[in-house]
Amino acid sequence: MARWEPDARGRLQQAAMELFRDRGYADVTVAEIAERAGLTKRTFFNHFADKREVFFANAQMFEEDVLAELAGADPALRPIDAAVRAVTRAGLKLAPYYEYAKARNAVLAVTPELRERDLVKSDRLARAMAGELVRRGASERTAGFAAEAALAVFALAAADWIATPAADLAGFMERALTDLRDAVG
Amino acid sequence: MARWEPDARGRLQQAAMELFRDRGYADVTVAEIAERAGLTKRTFFNHFADKREVFFANAQMFEEDVLAELAGADPALRPIDAAVRAVTRAGLKLAPYYEYAKARNAVLAVTPELRERDLVKSDRLARAMAGELVRRGASERTAGFAAEAALAVFALAAADWIATPAADLAGFMERALTDLRDAVG
Repeated sequence: MARWEPDARGRLQQAAMELFRDRGYADVTVAEIAERAGLTKRTFFNHFADKREVFFANAQMFEEDVLAELAGADPALRPIDAAVRAVTRAGLKLAPYYEYAKARNAVLAVTPELRERDLVKSDRLARAMAGELVRRGASERTAGFAAEAALAVFALAAADWIATPAADLAGFMERALTDLRDAVG
Repeated sequence: MARWEPDARGRLQQAAMELFRDRGYADVTVAEIAERAGLTKRTFFNHFADKREVFFANAQMFEEDVLAELAGADPALRPIDAAVRAVTRAGLKLAPYYEYAKARNAVLAVTPELRERDLVKSDRLARAMAGELVRRGASERTAGFAAEAALAVFALAAADWIATPAADLAGFMERALTDLRDAVG
């Protein structure tokens, strides 16, 4: 998989996530993030409004990619297949950010404020995905379940991938979807 | 179905929910809730720490009931069946609170602060349910998916029930579970 070669924005993200992981999200300042990235506070604020935005930068990109993939998906795909394919393709774009993703999960696990925000964002993404599936012709009920299922499958597959990064995210997605089907079937 | 005959605690809940619905959660004070219930602020604080706690009183009861039902469920039940049965039985206890539940949904829909708190509570309940299913012998993966699926099914069934209260929650649960299976199968 391609390594991530960060530009200024990426260096700020990486520096922030390492500081959050090592010192705790609450105690890290924007000045410290900029200093660790070898940049100025002014450059930080050219890219991000605050440290919460830097934490969620990739999550934001993921959300936008999922919705774009879903909007462009083959109309013949069933809702669950379109939803799983969209999160898989958006997730694959995050593959170069492995160290960042690993640090992010460690920070989330110990920071209730960020975990709550993450839940809210995930809920909003599920609703937006369901809306897109309804536009494709799915019923509200099918669309809602397919969107929630695809994100639940992604959460598990992403955790598997963080534990074993050399493996393929798409394979983990397939395995997690099979596990979901077995669990509810 | 039995009507809810509220005691002091119940009168405070009902008064609070009506005020939240009619005037907006942010603008309602504890003094107003007590006055509408015909009780004192002191009585309010004997039952609830603040107005957020009164909003989530039934949700808290539901969580405790779900976990108690799951802990006492037939060991031969599959995880998904044990989880769906537990939320159905806990949900049936909420049937007398129909007007309260309807007002609660209206308040949730327009109050992001409460909606976020609700998501956090639901996530915590899903984790606790999954822990209980693991203790019963399920794998972590099966337990997590079964718990999340049961709560997703309940969310839909509860919305159906609020729209058509004369019908049976258990029937809506079965229908929603079938829809979930069709959506992910």
